[in-house]
Amino acid sequence: MNTNEYISDAVIRRLPRYCRYLEELMDNGFTRISSDELSKRMGLTASQVRQDFNHFGGFGQQGYGYNVKTLHSEVAHILGIDHVHTVIIVGAGHLGQALANYPNFEKRKFHILALFDTNPSVIGTTESGLPVYPVSQLESFIKENNVDIGVLTIPKSEAVKMGTKLAECGIKGIWNFASTDLEIPGSDVIIENAHLSDSIMRLSYQLNNAEKA
Amino acid sequence: MNTNEYISDAVIRRLPRYCRYLEELMDNGFTRISSDELSKRMGLTASQVRQDFNHFGGFGQQGYGYNVKTLHSEVAHILGIDHVHTVIIVGAGHLGQALANYPNFEKRKFHILALFDTNPSVIGTTESGLPVYPVSQLESFIKENNVDIGVLTIPKSEAVKMGTKLAECGIKGIWNFASTDLEIPGSDVIIENAHLSDSIMRLSYQLNNAEKA
Repeated sequence: MNTNEYISDAVIRRLPRYCRYLEELMDNGFTRISSDELSKRMGLTASQVRQDFNHFGGFGQQGYGYNVKTLHSEVAHILGIDHVHTVIIVGAGHLGQALANYPNFEKRKFHILALFDTNPSVIGTTESGLPVYPVSQLESFIKENNVDIGVLTIPKSEAVKMGTKLAECGIKGIWNFASTDLEIPGSDVIIENAHLSDSIMRLSYQLNNAEKA
Repeated sequence: MNTNEYISDAVIRRLPRYCRYLEELMDNGFTRISSDELSKRMGLTASQVRQDFNHFGGFGQQGYGYNVKTLHSEVAHILGIDHVHTVIIVGAGHLGQALANYPNFEKRKFHILALFDTNPSVIGTTESGLPVYPVSQLESFIKENNVDIGVLTIPKSEAVKMGTKLAECGIKGIWNFASTDLEIPGSDVIIENAHLSDSIMRLSYQLNNAEKA
């Protein structure tokens, strides 16, 4: 892989999708797949798939298509999900608890260590068995456990303050669910904003245009 | 707006972002904004913003920039969030409850009417005051209330069965959180798959490449 090459956001957006489709192929016992077949399943063109993979060296399609397991390993490696990321969730409300229960994180080596909350009534243990600690223990926990990623499932009004705290404690990445494009000036923490309502607005767009068509 | 023009997925993906940024500008008392300023805030180029808006007729930038409120109305109209969508949530677990509490849906005219679940212990009322009904009442509720959108916050193993049921009851759109690309053959229901883990995989990609850089 040529790490100096610029990879467009659109290509990067498709990587998790490739990963999911390849997992599904493995689960269904497929060992090889052609770019034609993969593209058909994903609603892309075969040349799009080949172009995408060429950004990363092509993944050596030989004879009949790609080896599914090898291809999955390569995509997982590019995504960095071939190694464990330690994760904490700040905000043990419904969304925090839902993420703590989500089976696909563990599968992708996102290892959730604990949840944190300011509300004393939720301190204890989640249904899934994870500890919920008071926010006062955040700093020592992050330093002792070398936490990579902090998930923010707290209100927008708290997001900058808590994000700044996470960054100061040495967290490398923030996955932000507070409905704002979180920015933490002067920090090199990497922030991914998960805007839930963007997805339902896209659904609305499609419904709206289906009605017109 | 020329409805026959093909609008690329990348442009459509940016529409909810424009909408959010314009809302924030309005909240902060801005009345006009130039494409330069808007693009800077959004991390795009000014020519990208103008190109995007040209797909929809340009929105008449005059003198100094766009009128923020008018521009927001135009984008909201294109997204179809200028009129109410009635919504039900199937699955009243943590994720369903989190979505039921999410303030931005009501703001964008996604009007959640009720939740449904098969588990008798969650039937009743959510913390936010919404009714939770047994799934056996799904069909009659959808027909009586003319429901537009069904949100699936149920396990992957139930998604096709429940999605098919929603489609048969006349639901127009499904917002699917079950971790699969839901397909319902033979139905013209529109499906938007919200893959939560795609977003954390993109974070992982960025962390991985920041380490290399």
